[in-house]
Amino acid sequence: MTKHNMQLLRESCLKNGPLCVGLDTDPSYLPPEILSEFKTPSEAVLAYNLGIIENIRDFAGCFKIQIAYYEAMGLAGLNVYAQTVKAVKKAGFPVISDIKRGDIADTAKAYARAHFSGDFETDIITVNPYMGFDTLEPFTDWCSKAGKGLFVLLCTSNPGRENIEKQELKQGGLLLDQVGAELNRLEKQFSALYPDCGCSPVGAVVGCTAEEDAKKLREEYPNVFFLIPGYGAQGGQARIAATLLDKAGGTVNSSRGILLAWKKEPALEEKRSKSKLTMDDIVSAAVSAAEKTKQELLAAKAAL
Amino acid sequence: MTKHNMQLLRESCLKNGPLCVGLDTDPSYLPPEILSEFKTPSEAVLAYNLGIIENIRDFAGCFKIQIAYYEAMGLAGLNVYAQTVKAVKKAGFPVISDIKRGDIADTAKAYARAHFSGDFETDIITVNPYMGFDTLEPFTDWCSKAGKGLFVLLCTSNPGRENIEKQELKQGGLLLDQVGAELNRLEKQFSALYPDCGCSPVGAVVGCTAEEDAKKLREEYPNVFFLIPGYGAQGGQARIAATLLDKAGGTVNSSRGILLAWKKEPALEEKRSKSKLTMDDIVSAAVSAAEKTKQELLAAKAAL
Repeated sequence: MTKHNMQLLRESCLKNGPLCVGLDTDPSYLPPEILSEFKTPSEAVLAYNLGIIENIRDFAGCFKIQIAYYEAMGLAGLNVYAQTVKAVKKAGFPVISDIKRGDIADTAKAYARAHFSGDFETDIITVNPYMGFDTLEPFTDWCSKAGKGLFVLLCTSNPGRENIEKQELKQGGLLLDQVGAELNRLEKQFSALYPDCGCSPVGAVVGCTAEEDAKKLREEYPNVFFLIPGYGAQGGQARIAATLLDKAGGTVNSSRGILLAWKKEPALEEKRSKSKLTMDDIVSAAVSAAEKTKQELLAAKAAL
Repeated sequence: MTKHNMQLLRESCLKNGPLCVGLDTDPSYLPPEILSEFKTPSEAVLAYNLGIIENIRDFAGCFKIQIAYYEAMGLAGLNVYAQTVKAVKKAGFPVISDIKRGDIADTAKAYARAHFSGDFETDIITVNPYMGFDTLEPFTDWCSKAGKGLFVLLCTSNPGRENIEKQELKQGGLLLDQVGAELNRLEKQFSALYPDCGCSPVGAVVGCTAEEDAKKLREEYPNVFFLIPGYGAQGGQARIAATLLDKAGGTVNSSRGILLAWKKEPALEEKRSKSKLTMDDIVSAAVSAAEKTKQELLAAKAAL
């Protein structure tokens, strides 16, 4: 194997643009008139997901699927999750499973098997490093042996990041710098195994909320590919996202901005007011929003 | 509602002893001759779990189910997970779902719905605080409104806890003290809502590996109930576990020590050598190991 999944993701984003379409598809994101056409909410979610995947064209660099919304729909929801992951792969896009798992030893091995093989097999997962760096090993083993990829939580976009990630340490620096040092260590280790790749198979989750932080983080981890949440619904700005796209690059997630685009689409005003929206209508609105977001991000990158 | 699930767990452990039986049931923990009697590994796992639950009597204070092993079996595995949770509740024991989820805002709300209602509804879950204390709120909301309980990762038993949890802060103290301070704050908040309970609905995961740490943590969080992993297979000691059981108390998890007891049971030597073990044999070995572990823990507590 000469390329790992993070490099394939990177290449897809260089070709199709940096937008990561987030399929955090809660049933409440669909209009009631469409939900009522399906036997269950999870079937409606699957149909919406498939509609977006089939029509997205080159507006998406990749897809990210947030498993929490599917777990919340129980066993039927996890079936839809598995089918959505498969559909993204079949359509030829890299798929990130946003699962934020983290545990020790044999338990971490079980999570790695769960998401890198079998029913839920995906390309890249997000992981939580809180319990320590030994807990990353069962996942990085799959980067070595099967070309899988990870995004480790580094600097998230929520206010609570001050509580732990941004605590100042006695030895100097922030707690998140410890996580970052481990990412750079892993990058060096993997660069020998994957000499043809322009990034490490172990990327980082970096929220786009503070411009100075963005510049600093991008400098410090030049060969680490970033997953950038917090764009759109969470209030991040295109300029900051663009800053994070420098060096090894990254992919910028938008979920609700795309999934809920039908609520703001002027052309759907009349149908919306009469509760006569169709699945085609909301899929089209989502695809248009993806196209617009991609252009915004490319323009911001060009303007830097 | 006058009592939350953590108090019910506490009362069960005061009555039946502090052992938490860990159903981290990987199919590889069953002998091949038993596995081959079932159509799928997940059916064998379910039968073993049900055998233990039905026969455990008062040797268990509660059960803990590690979802990772079920996720690793895919959709069929999660079906078995859901059935195992239901079986524990039906048998009258408190059930802890070891899921270590953690995420922000609406995503954390989805995880809370996923595990406090619907197919996977459980009594108490474990959560990861890494992304900050705002990420705990969607879970603590369920403690207020539905009497659910949480165990927050405080000081785990793996070597990697040095990397983050035990980092020294510039302002003094360890990083885990920040998490602990939040637990004490929540305890005060909940004591007004649940005046009849002897502990907070928000407990802590505290591994049993270092005696000095154990004493200090037990002193600092007198009203916080502890989930204590690392006993048995992970090399923890009864004396340290007993130290952690003081004040508000706790429950001591043993998983492999019970699930794999059939491998060490002298009475099964001949059957084992002839690969003629039955489900009854391995369930009996597990139940005997649970009884022995309960007695060990009670003796250590009495000896303190």
